[in-house]
Amino acid sequence: MKKNVLIIGAGGVAQVVAHKCAQHNDILGNIAIASRQVAKCEAILSSILEKGSLKVEGKLSAHALDAMNIEATAALIRETESEIVINVGSAFVNMSVLSACLETGAAYMDTAIHEDPAKICETPPWYANYEWKRRQACAEKGVTAILGVGFDPGVVNAYAALAQAEYFDSIDSIDIIDVNAGSHGRWFATNFDPEINFREFTGQVWSWQNHQWTSNKMFEIKRTDDLPVVGEQTTYMTGHDEVHSLSQNLNVPNIRFWMGFGEHYINVFTVLKNLGLLSEQPVKTAEGQEVVPLKVVKAVLPDPSSLAPDYTGKTCIGDLVKGRKDGQEKEVFIYNVADHKEAYNEVGSQGISYTAGVPPVAAALLIATGEWDVARMVNVEELPPQPFLNLLNQMGLPTRIRDEAGDRDLVFS
Amino acid sequence: MKKNVLIIGAGGVAQVVAHKCAQHNDILGNIAIASRQVAKCEAILSSILEKGSLKVEGKLSAHALDAMNIEATAALIRETESEIVINVGSAFVNMSVLSACLETGAAYMDTAIHEDPAKICETPPWYANYEWKRRQACAEKGVTAILGVGFDPGVVNAYAALAQAEYFDSIDSIDIIDVNAGSHGRWFATNFDPEINFREFTGQVWSWQNHQWTSNKMFEIKRTDDLPVVGEQTTYMTGHDEVHSLSQNLNVPNIRFWMGFGEHYINVFTVLKNLGLLSEQPVKTAEGQEVVPLKVVKAVLPDPSSLAPDYTGKTCIGDLVKGRKDGQEKEVFIYNVADHKEAYNEVGSQGISYTAGVPPVAAALLIATGEWDVARMVNVEELPPQPFLNLLNQMGLPTRIRDEAGDRDLVFS
Repeated sequence: MKKNVLIIGAGGVAQVVAHKCAQHNDILGNIAIASRQVAKCEAILSSILEKGSLKVEGKLSAHALDAMNIEATAALIRETESEIVINVGSAFVNMSVLSACLETGAAYMDTAIHEDPAKICETPPWYANYEWKRRQACAEKGVTAILGVGFDPGVVNAYAALAQAEYFDSIDSIDIIDVNAGSHGRWFATNFDPEINFREFTGQVWSWQNHQWTSNKMFEIKRTDDLPVVGEQTTYMTGHDEVHSLSQNLNVPNIRFWMGFGEHYINVFTVLKNLGLLSEQPVKTAEGQEVVPLKVVKAVLPDPSSLAPDYTGKTCIGDLVKGRKDGQEKEVFIYNVADHKEAYNEVGSQGISYTAGVPPVAAALLIATGEWDVARMVNVEELPPQPFLNLLNQMGLPTRIRDEAGDRDLVFS
Repeated sequence: MKKNVLIIGAGGVAQVVAHKCAQHNDILGNIAIASRQVAKCEAILSSILEKGSLKVEGKLSAHALDAMNIEATAALIRETESEIVINVGSAFVNMSVLSACLETGAAYMDTAIHEDPAKICETPPWYANYEWKRRQACAEKGVTAILGVGFDPGVVNAYAALAQAEYFDSIDSIDIIDVNAGSHGRWFATNFDPEINFREFTGQVWSWQNHQWTSNKMFEIKRTDDLPVVGEQTTYMTGHDEVHSLSQNLNVPNIRFWMGFGEHYINVFTVLKNLGLLSEQPVKTAEGQEVVPLKVVKAVLPDPSSLAPDYTGKTCIGDLVKGRKDGQEKEVFIYNVADHKEAYNEVGSQGISYTAGVPPVAAALLIATGEWDVARMVNVEELPPQPFLNLLNQMGLPTRIRDEAGDRDLVFS
């Protein structure tokens, strides 16, 4: 049984991960948090103590770490005797943290695909550019690496695996729909790191259609759905991690990702993009200073973690799956609805961070108990979904299903 | 008779000034151009030679100059034996260039109010903050200083003086209307230095109403007029230099400035302003770099001088004056219409630069001949308007008038 967790990163998602680990420290053991800014780690530990989140007495520690430094990361894993690493730092550190896990034998998890700061939207499937090149190394060393185990990617991959196993003989399409119907009350803000947020939308939109990669422009294709709780919502086809693994791991001809955007977000995004202010390439001012415009945009926008106290409303994220069962056409929507205010009251983060931060802790529990400790690199759809969704039902992210039999909680015996 | 002209600045307006000086170098003598970037000065001189703009054989020279350096500027005035300085550099250098003129006795002209880089929209009347503090010094040294002698401010001040002298017994209101109905074909661009352009609109809007200063927000108050040539146009009440001198020099209760903006411009401006990207105060990026957001916005926008070749359409700028004459209510619109393409063909700049750059050369000719060589500091409305407008009629900016007698050229005998 693996135990002792090292959390890499100290943003809003790390805050949720830390709180949820503390709530299950009878199984997970010691909790260490590491980030470039140790003060942010210490603030998270204080908040755990303030909210009384520790289930049993336990060791908490904060560490300054540059996670691009493999040796320093490996040394910290050893020093803290961590057997599970939950990487919720910047998307630029995935490969260095994975290397440290390969060196130490610790289990590895992340919630978003690896990115090279200088490249936007690489060739599909994205996982083949970095992560999957380490598959063999993980298998050889018996290292468990679970890629993309946040909500989306992550829980939605488990929803897809569940649909295939339980509800369909054959699937024609999986449309993953992600709507944040909440409100932060600011003129404009991104819900997570603006740099990562905008990078997600400045490239081309890759989708999997008729068994092949299809490219579109951002905001080119939209749909409107009447969703549970949040009602009628317009979403836009968006490039997203899970399309790049589900397309390879499931035999499904159409897999698309849809994200909800208000007209205001689209307008601000369009202005910034068309002016060149979202560029990751440096420009030179009239005074000769070299500056990356996107980093200046990040500097003027609200810190996403500052939004949590005033955030109200709900998110709805799920898989709309269409196919055939017993010779009949069938359609199910498997989903979760999360509430920003409830998330803030429980762990001090808003709902977007909550949906991303709870699943890796559920996965850590399944690694600790051995159920998901598979000693190789996997995406979430390659693992049995029921124990994962079962834990999430208890941990604050209940699964619901809407199909011809109605709209109900999905409970596993 | 004064002669030999030093032009400070090497942007689109300086290009027009240089060409127009060359076209009248039989009166104006040698032409020197100075800017921080001497290559830009040299490019202007090349364009003068290419277009064959010199009326008679004459001396042209390009100089590297930091116009914030008073001693260097005075030395260049002496070295080039310039008796007239046309300052069309950045609005930050007005006071240092004026100091150099006071030191050397050269006549001084500019086309926009002095600005302190760290301050936005100071207390009205703006001229009292910097320029008018040097009135006495100019009078004592007998230095001619003509403030704001572009189109607006400048020609519109002469229109106001003309209206008062020739068409009214009493004036109730002067509404200066500035519409650019041209198109540059880019997604977004400013017609002159983006830094100066945006600074103009980020503060409060000062207007002169019922004999007192009134403050509004930008884009708060608009009007729609059916204008000559350009047709129906919506303009917004805007803070602008000429309101700050006309209100003090003419006994008119209402003086307002209106500028035309399309919805697209307003949207881009609003996004940038609300995000904090138009701020002149530095911010710090996550990496610790100190950056002034407005300077980054300037760096990503098209260079205004690059717009000229593709610019089409017309500008319409004029004074709508209402009052009484011989006991009757009366209304006149005194205006000019300029064409972007014609300006480019003649001098290689677009219409906005053309309307700003031709008037100071007309003023230089009036200083050279003595008519406007008043040996003190003045705003344009304090000078006889007819010789100035007469010259402009011949130099490419004809004055027209629309009143109860129709719409016609305004010609002076």
